[in-house]
Formats: sequence, C-alpha cells, structure tokens
Amino acid sequence: MNILIVYAHPEPDSLTGSLKDVAVQQLRQDGHDVRVSDLYAMGWKAHADAADFGDVAETNFMLASGEAYANGSLTPDIRAEQEKLLWADTVLLHFPLWWFSMPAILKGWVDRVFTCGFAYGVGSRALPRYGAGILSGRRAMLVVTIGGREPGYSDRGVNGPIEDLLFPIHHGILYYPGMDVLPPFLVHGSLRVNDTRFAEIAADLRERLAKLETIEPIRYRPQDGGDYDRSLRLRPGLERDGRTGFAVHITS
Amino acid sequence: MNILIVYAHPEPDSLTGSLKDVAVQQLRQDGHDVRVSDLYAMGWKAHADAADFGDVAETNFMLASGEAYANGSLTPDIRAEQEKLLWADTVLLHFPLWWFSMPAILKGWVDRVFTCGFAYGVGSRALPRYGAGILSGRRAMLVVTIGGREPGYSDRGVNGPIEDLLFPIHHGILYYPGMDVLPPFLVHGSLRVNDTRFAEIAADLRERLAKLETIEPIRYRPQDGGDYDRSLRLRPGLERDGRTGFAVHITS
Repeated sequence: MNILIVYAHPEPDSLTGSLKDVAVQQLRQDGHDVRVSDLYAMGWKAHADAADFGDVAETNFMLASGEAYANGSLTPDIRAEQEKLLWADTVLLHFPLWWFSMPAILKGWVDRVFTCGFAYGVGSRALPRYGAGILSGRRAMLVVTIGGREPGYSDRGVNGPIEDLLFPIHHGILYYPGMDVLPPFLVHGSLRVNDTRFAEIAADLRERLAKLETIEPIRYRPQDGGDYDRSLRLRPGLERDGRTGFAVHITS
Repeated sequence: MNILIVYAHPEPDSLTGSLKDVAVQQLRQDGHDVRVSDLYAMGWKAHADAADFGDVAETNFMLASGEAYANGSLTPDIRAEQEKLLWADTVLLHFPLWWFSMPAILKGWVDRVFTCGFAYGVGSRALPRYGAGILSGRRAMLVVTIGGREPGYSDRGVNGPIEDLLFPIHHGILYYPGMDVLPPFLVHGSLRVNDTRFAEIAADLRERLAKLETIEPIRYRPQDGGDYDRSLRLRPGLERDGRTGFAVHITS
C-alpha cells in the first residue's frame, strides 16, 4: 500500500514522535511505500489566508480557495499535500490531543489542504460527501496520545466520550471527502509512559498496523444512501435503540 | 464590563469580520471597555513549539510550558493574551466554523495561551477545572458563522448537532479553566447573506450583546460538585431521561 503519515508534534523525542517512528519503520519493513508529512519539520504554515490562493478574482474566502484549486494557483505546499492524499491508499494522522482536538498546525493542514473544489463544494457546485468524494476508496486512522486516563474519556467520563470528541475529525474531516475511517489507536496517560509501557504500546501499534487493510471501518451512514431526507436530517426510526447525538450517524 | 474579543478571520470584509465590527461598536457604545485580539492582523503564531517557552530545563512539552509559565519566560505575545484574559469579565470568540471546529489560528491561540500552570495542571500539580480555575467568574460566548443550513446541524442533521460539535470548545476549552459559557450566537447559511439579512443578524447580535450580563449560562456540571466519582465518571442515575454522550454533563 501507499501510506501517508501526517505527523504533528513539536518534539521528535515525544511519545507521539516515537510512535510515528515505530509506524514508519514497521510499515516499510512490511513492504509498504510510506511518505511522512512531518508538519513541524516542514515548517508548515498553519493559518489559512488569501496568500494560499495566488491570483484569483473571487473575494469570498471559501469560494476563492475553490477558484485557486480550479485554476491551479494554490501554493506549492498545498498542492503537494493534495497530491500525497491522492497517492495514498491509507492516511494516518499522528498527533497529541490538545484541548480535546488536534494541534493547531494539523488543523491548519486540514484548513489549507482540504480546499473548496477538492474536498468540498458549495451551492450549485456541491460535491458528493460523507462516504463519497475525492478521497473515497482510501482508509484513514488516527494515532492519538492523550494525557488523561481512560475513565475520564469513557461514556460517562467528565471530558466526554473520546469517540464523540473525535467525531468532528473522524466524520467531519475524514469521512466527509470519502475516506473509510478505522477505529482510532489511542494511548491514554501519555505522561506516565516508561520503557516497559512504551514497548507494550509499540507492540500494540505494530499489531494494529498489520491489520490496516482488513480491519472494519466505523460504519458511518453515507449521505446519499437514502438514510437522510432532503434537509439532511436522518429519517425517523433508523437509529438503534434510543441513540441520540453523533451516534445516530453510525449504523451498528 | 471589560470585554475581550478574540477574532479569527483572514478577511476583514467577511461576514465574521463585519459581525466583529458590529460587536465592538455596540459594546463600546454601551460603555464597556473592549479589547480586540485580531489574530490575523496581529500575525499570531499558530503553532505551539519550544520557542514559546524561553529558557526551561524540562523536556516534556506539556510540563515545559508549565515551567515557562511559572518562571515568567513565556514569550511576550502569550503573556499579553493571558493578561487580557485575566483583565476580561467576558470573552467573546468570533470565528467561522471550518471543518466543524475553529480555524487553526484560533486553535493556536488556545494551544499557546492556555499553558500548563495557567489553564491546567498535571499529576500532583493538577489545578481545579470544569467550573473552577483561573478564569472562573468570567463569562464566555462564541459568535460563529456556519456555511451550511440549520437542519444539517440539528439533532438528526448529517453533520451532527451543533451543540455537540461545539462541546469540545464550550466545555473542553472555556468551562475547563472556569468560565461560564453562554449559549452561542450562530449564523447559518453564511454564504447567502445579503444586506437585508445582514441587518437582521446584526440586530439579533446587538440584542444578544445587551443581555451578556444576564443570560443564563449552559448548566455544565462542575467537576468538584459531587456528581463525578474518583475516576471522573458521572455517578449513575444523575443524567436526565436517558441522555447519553456529551449531554449527560449538562444538568438541565
């Protein structure tokens, strides 16, 4: 497989960085072709602005990104990442959970690379989405290090369930342009990882990576599968046993 | 009141920018003292890295930010924002919803300003949080422009309910260090706002701003109020009528 790893941590010796190294080493050993977008090492520009677009006529910011995509005037750093996504069969995002989401530099990779015309459309130029789109046929998985312990991120945990905290990324960013999203690889208690624990986590990660091609994705509902009405609300009665919130968008 | 507006949009003429202008004008007219952190205009550095910390001994990234906070060696841009937060009675975050969250530059304001020691602690140096913390006694409110229409963000909408999409910001970022979080001011269909519609939205915003001191905050459960057990899970039976997910952390 062609595997793109997008990695976002400022310290190469961090737990996140070390697990990225484990993944690169293991995947290459298994014969995959691996490319790494190390956002900090690349000096990735995190903030989206009009300088990303080159010469465009449109003034609305969202539409201007679409014009720049259509006419090929996006900056080379953005086009390179779009090409990597199209090249990849599987995309891994390696990051620490900061304030219950991804670090700003990774959010800026999404904001700048997932342009209008590429990852989404608007109005009369709407694109297929949620289970369909330019990245369909690809798989994605998060590898996330988390400072807090697991119970605080469980169904009744004070931080909210981790699967709900990750829903805006899983469903809203990865599934949106068509990728199949695998269950995340999570490491809790990231501040308390000694050598023994690290060896266990690395072994778990290697085991998970060996199953990248076979593991079942999260069963999100495709937007165009008949489950949603014209206003894009889930039709009545389709959700399982009294589910509410994000969970209604998963079929099993 | 002292009111801090943190504003994140690259285009001053955008809907988000225009609504920020409405807020500044109205709040000053009403006699409040208003300061604006216009992140794009400030050239705000979005990515957190060790250059933020000055001279510190600690190598763990999270703990290093805490050491820098304790010894006063955080960069001046970060210290200035921390001082603004302490000065403010109310904090407004004005931003467009990009990929179901805040723009990277605003996430980078959170990542860099909400340092260890200031907004959170770890291990034996844990700080009070969720309803208590350095920003307690302050109010916060989001003003968010959203491209899509409201039904797609409703309880059964394909994007997920907007109150759940915003939970990681409301609860995880604002309530965490102690702020009371007001219901957000949301503008859907941001690409289709003509002059008539803008005048209506601006009037709604002015009306909302007049109630900043009196409107009821979202009733999140304080972590130390007895509702959570030692593993930080909500005790059984406290949630209303079969609620699950994020909603169990709201009392009414």
